[in-house]
Amino acid sequence: MSDLKEDKISSTQIFSGKLIDLYLDNVRLPNGKQSTREWLDHPGAVCLVPILNNGDILLIRQFRYGPREEFIEIPAGKLDKNEEPLKCGLRELEEETGYKSNKLTFLTNIHPAIGFSNEKMWMYLAEELELSEKKLDDDEFLELLPTPLNVALEWVFSGKITDVKTIIGIMWMKELKFNH
Amino acid sequence: MSDLKEDKISSTQIFSGKLIDLYLDNVRLPNGKQSTREWLDHPGAVCLVPILNNGDILLIRQFRYGPREEFIEIPAGKLDKNEEPLKCGLRELEEETGYKSNKLTFLTNIHPAIGFSNEKMWMYLAEELELSEKKLDDDEFLELLPTPLNVALEWVFSGKITDVKTIIGIMWMKELKFNH
Repeated sequence: MSDLKEDKISSTQIFSGKLIDLYLDNVRLPNGKQSTREWLDHPGAVCLVPILNNGDILLIRQFRYGPREEFIEIPAGKLDKNEEPLKCGLRELEEETGYKSNKLTFLTNIHPAIGFSNEKMWMYLAEELELSEKKLDDDEFLELLPTPLNVALEWVFSGKITDVKTIIGIMWMKELKFNH
Repeated sequence: MSDLKEDKISSTQIFSGKLIDLYLDNVRLPNGKQSTREWLDHPGAVCLVPILNNGDILLIRQFRYGPREEFIEIPAGKLDKNEEPLKCGLRELEEETGYKSNKLTFLTNIHPAIGFSNEKMWMYLAEELELSEKKLDDDEFLELLPTPLNVALEWVFSGKITDVKTIIGIMWMKELKFNH
């Protein structure tokens, strides 16, 4: 295996927002030459595949400002500073859906945007759900969309669901359901 | 279905780089209040699941500067200005792997980072591959990693592969292979 690593020479912060921290770095390439790299520093995030007692996946419908579209998604949210992924998962599930889970199971890590961000997501299966008090963020608006697994799979393969974490969560569920 | 849409009031470009265009917008929320949204304008991208004549998936190994790690991926690249996704797919496949494909089949669209970007990817199955001339970009370094589907699936479920487009492409292949 050849050395593919790029080494940082210097780094400049371009922007620090409530969501995005943007950096412009000078780097040394594997061939010794220099180049620049633009990248977003991200605190990490958690997403959950919540399974209701009747077996439905608890999807949500949400408007996303970047792409200017509504998406069908699984619940997700960013890690607060020093927050454990599992704790974050329980918090986000409750904030977004109004459900508590008594059984979170880690499924996998995913990297959504390795071309320009260090964002890493922890994905959990959330079972044994019970209703709690819904506490949506002030600027977060969404609708719950409980959906049978076979319908969710249809939506993946017909292109109605295009959000990556949601596609992976639904396909992972199929794998768990039919192969274990 | 309630109205979940957020309307742009004003938009400011914060940064325009070779990869990233960052904007900070003022928006009106569904409840009438105002807030800000940070988002990246992205030209769109294409990714491909290349299948070699022996049935292996042609994966690649590449260092990614944002997460500062090597990843196992399917080939992918950004759309040039006004470029057709299919044409981009053929170009990127050849640039990254040295293979031409005589049969591209559209699989689906995916949105990798809807929380902060409008990036949309077109995913293709690339078959009937033949060797061409390899033309890597000047600042792109990678290794080819031809991999049987069952091994690639193992790498997905063991967490060795965490890149979202790659997970989806491999799971999609399994679906095509065993259900059609």
